[in-house]
Amino acid sequence: MTNHRQLLKDDRLMPLRIAESAREPAELVEFHRWLAELGERMYTRADRVPLSELTGWHTEESTGNLRHDSGKFFTVEGLDIHMPGGPVAHWSQPIIHQPEIGILGILVKQFDGVLHCLMQAKAEPGNCNGLQLSPTVQATRSNYTRVHRGKPVPYLEYFQDTSRHNVIVDVRQSEQGSWFQHKRNRNMVVEVAEEVELLDGFCWLTLGQVHRLFREDNLIAMDARTVLSCLPFAGTDLAKVFPAAADEFHSALFRSCDADEGSLHSADSILSWITESRTRTDVFTNRIPLHDVAGWYRTEEKIAHERDLYFDVIGLDVDASGREVGRWTQPVIEPHGVGVVAFLAQVIGGVLHVLVHARVEPGFVDAVELAPTVQCIPENFDPLPPEARPMFLDYVLNAKPDQIRFDTELSEEGGRFYHARNRYLVIELDTDADVDDRYFRWMPLHQLVDLLRHSHYLNVQARSLVACLHSLSGA
Amino acid sequence: MTNHRQLLKDDRLMPLRIAESAREPAELVEFHRWLAELGERMYTRADRVPLSELTGWHTEESTGNLRHDSGKFFTVEGLDIHMPGGPVAHWSQPIIHQPEIGILGILVKQFDGVLHCLMQAKAEPGNCNGLQLSPTVQATRSNYTRVHRGKPVPYLEYFQDTSRHNVIVDVRQSEQGSWFQHKRNRNMVVEVAEEVELLDGFCWLTLGQVHRLFREDNLIAMDARTVLSCLPFAGTDLAKVFPAAADEFHSALFRSCDADEGSLHSADSILSWITESRTRTDVFTNRIPLHDVAGWYRTEEKIAHERDLYFDVIGLDVDASGREVGRWTQPVIEPHGVGVVAFLAQVIGGVLHVLVHARVEPGFVDAVELAPTVQCIPENFDPLPPEARPMFLDYVLNAKPDQIRFDTELSEEGGRFYHARNRYLVIELDTDADVDDRYFRWMPLHQLVDLLRHSHYLNVQARSLVACLHSLSGA
Repeated sequence: MTNHRQLLKDDRLMPLRIAESAREPAELVEFHRWLAELGERMYTRADRVPLSELTGWHTEESTGNLRHDSGKFFTVEGLDIHMPGGPVAHWSQPIIHQPEIGILGILVKQFDGVLHCLMQAKAEPGNCNGLQLSPTVQATRSNYTRVHRGKPVPYLEYFQDTSRHNVIVDVRQSEQGSWFQHKRNRNMVVEVAEEVELLDGFCWLTLGQVHRLFREDNLIAMDARTVLSCLPFAGTDLAKVFPAAADEFHSALFRSCDADEGSLHSADSILSWITESRTRTDVFTNRIPLHDVAGWYRTEEKIAHERDLYFDVIGLDVDASGREVGRWTQPVIEPHGVGVVAFLAQVIGGVLHVLVHARVEPGFVDAVELAPTVQCIPENFDPLPPEARPMFLDYVLNAKPDQIRFDTELSEEGGRFYHARNRYLVIELDTDADVDDRYFRWMPLHQLVDLLRHSHYLNVQARSLVACLHSLSGA
Repeated sequence: MTNHRQLLKDDRLMPLRIAESAREPAELVEFHRWLAELGERMYTRADRVPLSELTGWHTEESTGNLRHDSGKFFTVEGLDIHMPGGPVAHWSQPIIHQPEIGILGILVKQFDGVLHCLMQAKAEPGNCNGLQLSPTVQATRSNYTRVHRGKPVPYLEYFQDTSRHNVIVDVRQSEQGSWFQHKRNRNMVVEVAEEVELLDGFCWLTLGQVHRLFREDNLIAMDARTVLSCLPFAGTDLAKVFPAAADEFHSALFRSCDADEGSLHSADSILSWITESRTRTDVFTNRIPLHDVAGWYRTEEKIAHERDLYFDVIGLDVDASGREVGRWTQPVIEPHGVGVVAFLAQVIGGVLHVLVHARVEPGFVDAVELAPTVQCIPENFDPLPPEARPMFLDYVLNAKPDQIRFDTELSEEGGRFYHARNRYLVIELDTDADVDDRYFRWMPLHQLVDLLRHSHYLNVQARSLVACLHSLSGA
């Protein structure tokens, strides 16, 4: 029996439409005026409070775990990690357990033939600077099932029922595997054709505008970066639509988005390398009671490492205007020091490649994800012997100005982390270095974008850097 | 700094080379003579023994779990499953826990310009019929780290160090999620150019020959089917290399392997549907002591369900000739009845599509995988009300002869399951049915093959059926 319904071919236009939106000149005077005006009206004040004074949260007697009284949101608990053969074979640590999958969604719509993103200015309690530019929707499941009886999440309906819309991105991706146990969010980009009401606190920006804003410290929020990184900003013949590049680096960057330009390693050999990395690595993790975590201490104030490294768990008293619930307290993670997150980059055969690291983090669902070349908080290594220092860290920190292709300080999620900032860098190699080894591979952007259609290949820091690299394609 | 190393493009030749090997006429007289002769020399005798008489295995006092004295291989333990909103919201069951990732590998080599697969005739203790055709290598990690001090696994070195070879497939895939907790194996196909010694018990076959053998009951072993299913047997322009098809079904099958022919749903919308299915579904599983499993009983003899449904855990005393260790005992799972595993198929727009089911199994790493339209042991539903009967089961069982495009009884893995057999079917719809709903999608083969480059999208039964469908392309 034959059915004559119409078949679809792959949408090869979408990468072009995305590239065109990225090429739009970035007029931002109006945007900055809007953001400044909004910053005066919308605020989130967050004061540190002792953990013992959190309201709505309690410490579970039998485990020491920090839990919300509703049993929802998240818990702070312990994780015990065995990694035979790893640099540290066994340790335990506090970790955030939040098994539910939330939605991070950007709504896009064509105006005058150009795709625009609906971005939200949002002041998360952990932000170091008030408002940051966030996705249209950031909804935990508690949000949209209304556990905390707040206001409904605006625009959420576009992501919950996509049947009338064009789904461009819809993929679950991991978040910080050192601080979260198995945390994933659903990253979505949905294109609508219909009229969309513009609410206070939201604005339509071209990708070109958003990309230009990547140059400003702590402006593009983590949740926006991860969603943007999943855009199919790579395709065949894409190099041809970009304007003539200013220099060899930018030509190589454009070619890096074009699947027809090839790559140092075939897609199959990259997949095989990932399989090998994930098969080789034994990571045994066990959730344990928070009070069984070794090497950490707890006071009325906070939970901290006995050498004051890594991070503290502290309490916040939050007073927010314009958020779903006006006032609450919560625990957050406060890292010690500003991190360094960097890709080494190299033009290989005319195509920009970045050096990707197969990295283990204890909270990953699948042991290993692809990470930046360097990802660490340097201060954590100060008390350790030199051989424990992360590979390439000193090379990155000592890069000459003309090697630095991207350099912006950006924040991690302000809903769970307090003043967590990383310096995001793209550093071009100044020597022809053949550094592929079992833990590293050179990959062009189009291979990374291809993997980003699927879950759990790239960690959140690598995704941020992919978005940063895309931002360099702007006019 | 620019590096002038040569870049690679995607290997578009491989699908053609695979299709050419599949088109080879299937001369099998010699093969059957070889297999018959081998069957007289190589045997595995397996006698049922009471669980209490297993040697080298013990029942853990505190849990009731069945463990090997070495702590290796696998354990039989309990799993407690909560699936709010599912057809059964809560149950517990015995399950096999085997966290290590083994290797299933097929070595391929070109002879006279045609790819040949090195297949192994292997008599697993749970096989109902002695020898079955298996991959070149089937190695648990215990095998290759030599826990049981047996002989080395022949040909394993080709899969452990692939640097000199061409890796065609290398991906971890799940196994039976109803019987295994988080079981994965690494599925590999490696092409060698060098001379390969042909050992006793092995033979080189073209894909055309292997495909013809899919028509014989219980001959192509599960481990061979899953590896074969991961071959990139789909590509662009592939429809053109197949011979003129005998009928519309076969033309549609060839077009189904050709990515240029399109599909009812775009790749992006399929990925979004999978994300939606995996986000929607809450499956909470907890490993529990085997003696805490409710509704199951244990005797000296076996572990069984109180209504004698599903499966038993029994003991086997194995006497094998030609295996790594000559004599051993072990527990195995013996299912109750022969299962039905079927794809409904339909020609849509000239391209064969199969109806894929987003299915929950408790042992999956990621809640939902794509499964056949029908996958069950019908007898398990006899005591249940009619509304509990799986969708499409009766349609499949009542199909008219001219709707049945594939129909072979095939075995599941004989190393862990005793006489576990399924009737594998491809049934062509006799009416133009629009059955897409939130749990089902029509997909052509090339979309399935594309997903099979990545882990955990298709379950082992769906992979078997993909291999069965490919087998229909033969000369």
